[in-house]
Amino acid sequence: MLIFVSELIGTMLLILLGDGVVANVTLNKSGMKGGGPVQITLAWGLAVMLPAFIFGASSGAHFNPALTIALAAEGSIGWYVVPTYIAGQFIGAFLGATLVYVLFKGQFDLTEDPGTKLGVFSTGPSVPNTGLNLLSEAIGTFVLVFAIKGIGNVKDVAPGVDKLLVFGIIVSIGMSLGGLTGYAINPARDLGPRIAHALLPIKGKRDSNWGYSWIPVVGPIIGALAAVLLYNAIPW
Amino acid sequence: MLIFVSELIGTMLLILLGDGVVANVTLNKSGMKGGGPVQITLAWGLAVMLPAFIFGASSGAHFNPALTIALAAEGSIGWYVVPTYIAGQFIGAFLGATLVYVLFKGQFDLTEDPGTKLGVFSTGPSVPNTGLNLLSEAIGTFVLVFAIKGIGNVKDVAPGVDKLLVFGIIVSIGMSLGGLTGYAINPARDLGPRIAHALLPIKGKRDSNWGYSWIPVVGPIIGALAAVLLYNAIPW
Amino acid sequence: MLIFVSELIGTMLLILLGDGVVANVTLNKSGMKGGGPVQITLAWGLAVMLPAFIFGASSGAHFNPALTIALAAEGSIGWYVVPTYIAGQFIGAFLGATLVYVLFKGQFDLTEDPGTKLGVFSTGPSVPNTGLNLLSEAIGTFVLVFAIKGIGNVKDVAPGVDKLLVFGIIVSIGMSLGGLTGYAINPARDLGPRIAHALLPIKGKRDSNWGYSWIPVVGPIIGALAAVLLYNAIPW
Amino acid sequence: MLIFVSELIGTMLLILLGDGVVANVTLNKSGMKGGGPVQITLAWGLAVMLPAFIFGASSGAHFNPALTIALAAEGSIGWYVVPTYIAGQFIGAFLGATLVYVLFKGQFDLTEDPGTKLGVFSTGPSVPNTGLNLLSEAIGTFVLVFAIKGIGNVKDVAPGVDKLLVFGIIVSIGMSLGGLTGYAINPARDLGPRIAHALLPIKGKRDSNWGYSWIPVVGPIIGALAAVLLYNAIPW
Repeated sequence: MLIFVSELIGTMLLILLGDGVVANVTLNKSGMKGGGPVQITLAWGLAVMLPAFIFGASSGAHFNPALTIALAAEGSIGWYVVPTYIAGQFIGAFLGATLVYVLFKGQFDLTEDPGTKLGVFSTGPSVPNTGLNLLSEAIGTFVLVFAIKGIGNVKDVAPGVDKLLVFGIIVSIGMSLGGLTGYAINPARDLGPRIAHALLPIKGKRDSNWGYSWIPVVGPIIGALAAVLLYNAIPW
Repeated sequence: MLIFVSELIGTMLLILLGDGVVANVTLNKSGMKGGGPVQITLAWGLAVMLPAFIFGASSGAHFNPALTIALAAEGSIGWYVVPTYIAGQFIGAFLGATLVYVLFKGQFDLTEDPGTKLGVFSTGPSVPNTGLNLLSEAIGTFVLVFAIKGIGNVKDVAPGVDKLLVFGIIVSIGMSLGGLTGYAINPARDLGPRIAHALLPIKGKRDSNWGYSWIPVVGPIIGALAAVLLYNAIPW
Repeated sequence: MLIFVSELIGTMLLILLGDGVVANVTLNKSGMKGGGPVQITLAWGLAVMLPAFIFGASSGAHFNPALTIALAAEGSIGWYVVPTYIAGQFIGAFLGATLVYVLFKGQFDLTEDPGTKLGVFSTGPSVPNTGLNLLSEAIGTFVLVFAIKGIGNVKDVAPGVDKLLVFGIIVSIGMSLGGLTGYAINPARDLGPRIAHALLPIKGKRDSNWGYSWIPVVGPIIGALAAVLLYNAIPW
Repeated sequence: MLIFVSELIGTMLLILLGDGVVANVTLNKSGMKGGGPVQITLAWGLAVMLPAFIFGASSGAHFNPALTIALAAEGSIGWYVVPTYIAGQFIGAFLGATLVYVLFKGQFDLTEDPGTKLGVFSTGPSVPNTGLNLLSEAIGTFVLVFAIKGIGNVKDVAPGVDKLLVFGIIVSIGMSLGGLTGYAINPARDLGPRIAHALLPIKGKRDSNWGYSWIPVVGPIIGALAAVLLYNAIPW
């Protein structure tokens, strides 16, 4: 129960702050329109780090089905608890995206471009190419999970400093690889808000680009599994 | 007495550095005009973090009536001490804003737009809408207080790292939600400087937008109370 | 002897990296021309923090005559050692500025504007006004020294985290108040490179603005003394 | 064996994220094109820090032949192990650059300018001048190695905070001196990707600028040796 609540509230906070920054810098009339990729990437890093601190002890602060599945695959958590994690993650992501819509309702209404509106919710590729887009999401998530494993296993780190690293990991992936597919690197982060985009009465919205929607689900799972596989193969 | 002095000097420093960055990047002839939202949000984060380190042990470093009230409501501090906190916070905020005016007097005189001048002191909505503006301030402050509670309760954090998180919380709220209403998330931060704007002999100033002034007071108090309520309802 | 060497090398490093970033983002043909105030302020923060870590144990890492004088005035160091500190600081600042000139010689030669060239070495006011410029330097240094004292006296901080705060202090002052007079907040940082500007054979240089040069010397000393005075008057 | 694997994977990760950010902000159609020097320098800092955390215990996380050679020269590691380090570093750098090419294939194909394409892989001078370019690479690497030595010898730092400093060092050198020659400060970081540029079938590529290629190899080695020499000459 605590796992479900923690993952739900944590992922909701993550999407409120994460989708929030995209709304904040891309929607018309927002006071911070035009903040650019430095603001977006730093804010996504904080959006993950803050709930990671708050819920680290109660659920491990996954907020990401790909991470949950990879940790189950290597035996760090039991498979029986995976559905609880994933349910909390998707419900939280949906609710967080809905809250962003409510808060930015005025700015959504004053924004013409339907692609910009979808971009607040979900990711998309800068150059569409199924194979490379899938690879991009897989590699981004590989870095995420490999680094989480790596930092989690450092023997001697002052408590809390490891969590600061979570910020560094997310910012790094975003700044270095984010221009490829928008670095979903998390099935719940992309699909939850995409469902919200489909269901919410957003003025002048386009379709929710379902044809692309499987890539930020499958890519991250592949990358996360590859990361635990390689990590555990290294003779540390 | 130490609480009053700490909250007063701390909030004065907070507003000197916080309103300072807005003056620094928006007023004509400032050497850093045009720094943009990344500079504004990082600088506000530092403006809160530095006095939080300095005065954390002597007053708990609230600097924010909404936080003070929420901590009293949950019983962390006694109600009898609340007036001392709030008096220090408002006087400090007023003095900090006055100091910003004095320092940037030359730049204020060379800036035409009266809205820019008011914006150095107080916040305003990018899309006026009483309900949503109130919600925006409430949600921003909810995140602030929920995260402060959460990080304060993490068992194992190296001392000082928790204070670094204060920086992360403020920057996160600003970067992700700041374009809505300017993220006052603190009644003293907004009302104290607004009173200073009304009283100071600023050349070519507009009215102090009193019709909006209650929103960054009431919204944060609602959000802070909701945060302690939810936080204490979770079965940690 | 170790104090002299530490202050000399530390201040040289500080000016190499600090004046370096100004050259890096303002001189023609530099690959990072146009980086803007976020880059300048973050880089100055790092320019102070890195030597502060390296030389903290050997000299206390002042690198700033105003800080040295204030610490002597409150009795933290003996007056007899002050000349050693200040000599190291000025020689280091001069050498650091000279090294910046040598490294960026090609970029200096390709830059027309003589004010931009002086700006790499020394600070100047955005709106000239003797009283307010002096106040600006005094207040900036007040914040610096008050925060250094404050953080140095926090009982419980994990070692090293306090030094990270030095970065935060410098960035905060720069981002919030830097557009007033360029935040010298350090007599050696301004006067040492100004002397270098006067002596070096810089192509097409202007005069070294000696009429202003006393302000970033006297202002910081006043501010630093006021900071230790107020800090020690608070009944902690 | 663990040293070889660690240096190889670590350097590969470093170049994936480091060359990645250059691709991400400079290639046409990347969603983050135009991010600018703040994004580039912060991302390179993270690109070094993350593998430094992960592989610090297993190989010392050099990822840089100049550092490896300097540490051998001062006797911190044996010369017999140097080839293992350097082999891992060059192979990792080559593989990382290749991965960046594959991921950004679509963006490379849509970018006309051959200089921009080479710039993703390797560095070049903003003002060509053999002596000064060599000096720039030497000084940048001097700061890197001197700071690494300095921070490694601080007696009292909470574990992990020292690694955060690695981020600060890289960002500082980039922000302050990066506009001179692109701050290779690492022979493997520059030569490995240059070889990849020469071998990969990049559409519309230019020559790999072999005439310059020795400078980011020789300069860093000189700077690193000078740093350990000076560091060990100071009577700490």
